[in-house]
Amino acid sequence: MRAKEIGEFGLIARIRGAASDLPPDVIKGVGDDCAILRPDVEHDFLFTCDCQIQGTHFRNEWITPRQLGRRVAAVNLSDVAAMGGAPRWALCSLAIPEETDVAWVDELYTGMRRELAGAGASLVGGNTARLSGAALIDLFLVGAVERGRALLRSGARPGDLVFVTGDLGASAAGLALLRDGVGKVDHEIAEEAIGRHLTPTPRLGEGRALAATGLVSSCIDVSDGLASDALRLAEESGVTVRLDAERIPLSRAALALGEATGLDPMDLALYGGEEFELLFTAGRGAEDAVREAVAAAAGASVKRIGEVAAGAPEVLVERRGKVFSAQRKGYDHFSSG
Amino acid sequence: MRAKEIGEFGLIARIRGAASDLPPDVIKGVGDDCAILRPDVEHDFLFTCDCQIQGTHFRNEWITPRQLGRRVAAVNLSDVAAMGGAPRWALCSLAIPEETDVAWVDELYTGMRRELAGAGASLVGGNTARLSGAALIDLFLVGAVERGRALLRSGARPGDLVFVTGDLGASAAGLALLRDGVGKVDHEIAEEAIGRHLTPTPRLGEGRALAATGLVSSCIDVSDGLASDALRLAEESGVTVRLDAERIPLSRAALALGEATGLDPMDLALYGGEEFELLFTAGRGAEDAVREAVAAAAGASVKRIGEVAAGAPEVLVERRGKVFSAQRKGYDHFSSG
Repeated sequence: MRAKEIGEFGLIARIRGAASDLPPDVIKGVGDDCAILRPDVEHDFLFTCDCQIQGTHFRNEWITPRQLGRRVAAVNLSDVAAMGGAPRWALCSLAIPEETDVAWVDELYTGMRRELAGAGASLVGGNTARLSGAALIDLFLVGAVERGRALLRSGARPGDLVFVTGDLGASAAGLALLRDGVGKVDHEIAEEAIGRHLTPTPRLGEGRALAATGLVSSCIDVSDGLASDALRLAEESGVTVRLDAERIPLSRAALALGEATGLDPMDLALYGGEEFELLFTAGRGAEDAVREAVAAAAGASVKRIGEVAAGAPEVLVERRGKVFSAQRKGYDHFSSG
Repeated sequence: MRAKEIGEFGLIARIRGAASDLPPDVIKGVGDDCAILRPDVEHDFLFTCDCQIQGTHFRNEWITPRQLGRRVAAVNLSDVAAMGGAPRWALCSLAIPEETDVAWVDELYTGMRRELAGAGASLVGGNTARLSGAALIDLFLVGAVERGRALLRSGARPGDLVFVTGDLGASAAGLALLRDGVGKVDHEIAEEAIGRHLTPTPRLGEGRALAATGLVSSCIDVSDGLASDALRLAEESGVTVRLDAERIPLSRAALALGEATGLDPMDLALYGGEEFELLFTAGRGAEDAVREAVAAAAGASVKRIGEVAAGAPEVLVERRGKVFSAQRKGYDHFSSG
């Protein structure tokens, strides 16, 4: 059944009908002019929005609608994770061709709802509209963080150490494998890499644990690439970020793809986007505490990969005895055509 | 200069650069993973999102980017108005072709910012992405209303009276004039009608005044058409809405277009969307108080156009001694092709 067969109101009824029970701070969910949410003064609210566009962010032949729903939730959850927050409420704008199969929409919302629910958030509203030629899913997510405790990009100070959660390059490797075929890489590794690209894991437990330490001076999620996001952090903090390439944790997928194709895995780690690991800084004395807090809360690894220095906003990478300035080469919607 | 020439980061810097001063409850605006907003417990928060899509909601040959910015703000402001709220914060998702002129983007944000600022709201974040073939602007708006005082669609009770602000049919007339040419209608009237279609006025003062009376049992904004939105109100409240056609205030543009073309102005009023007047109900004893409150606060007229009856969720219109059931004929994104 196509969207145009049930119409806008049918589509809304379908989306609304699947709504699960809402928490008590949702006074009114889908079904009025606005959703009504009841705030509390112990928290600051974190607002973010990020969309997934067919042709730009995904291709229907690579991703199921359920995975796509998880993905659009995950990329937004990651922004809340990077601020140390707990996700609360979401609204979804859906713009789709009228020929879209209604079952595709159902699956999309199932994936989105489950990913949100797993992170403690509820879908409380949204809208639908017709768009020719592509599907676009725009999610607006609100999180909460203890008042005044949000992790900003702007707090890094000279002398701080630079850390990253997990490892890097798997999402970029997964994208390359989707584009060029998986023949050259071990099947299990390829599957993992593609999974990390299509349905990334937002580092929510890690973000919460980091915020709770009170020791983290700045934080950002790696959405455009380590080099690009480190540069944003450097710019917002007014510092130089120095990275030690030998310490950057490379995913086994990036290593395997490098072996199979001759690609430099470090390029995948530095310039591959949509990794959604957390890049953060903390004072020198805080390393053990930060590491233990994250391990206790979420079990993820934390690697120290560099330090913060006084100087122009720039990212310097030391590798094999040489230092180079990492350019912003991450994904740019308008320049990477 | 095209969007692809300055890239995503250039575009964001440009949008960010134009940010005006933010109110003290905006702890962090554009420039981090999320915006940070500080809530207060005296208010409930109202969340809404609505988008404008090229080809679906607007054509570039009809609307300037500055008007379009005002329009996307206005349609969202209207949802907050319909709940009796005061607009506070907005995030904007912009999806545009890479060939888009950067000046177009600047103008869009200028219009959006001004319309929001005029309503007391600030743009605090968003994102940009590439979309082929069309521009899409999705706005998320958060408003605040005194705790527990939001005007819902679901509170209409048998015996209540039905009211509408302003007059109806002007936006629909404006759209018809844009489509078919303005030749047949007085120039001044045509200009007014087109203005009401392109840059509608959200009834914010009226909504605030209505909420303050504590006498309004239900409220919705006329976004899909009087018949369609009255039906939503009937459905949410579980009542029959009876409208007296002779009392429905017809705009002079609808009347003029009717005279010039033979179109029934009542059809424009009943089925024309994007009017953004407020349709609301209140108890019989409340008519004078409601009328005076709106007049004092905003100066708009309020017309009584019908009453609420027990019965199946339906909209019955009495006209020239006959009663007909108004079908849902308003704009449907997926059925009106």
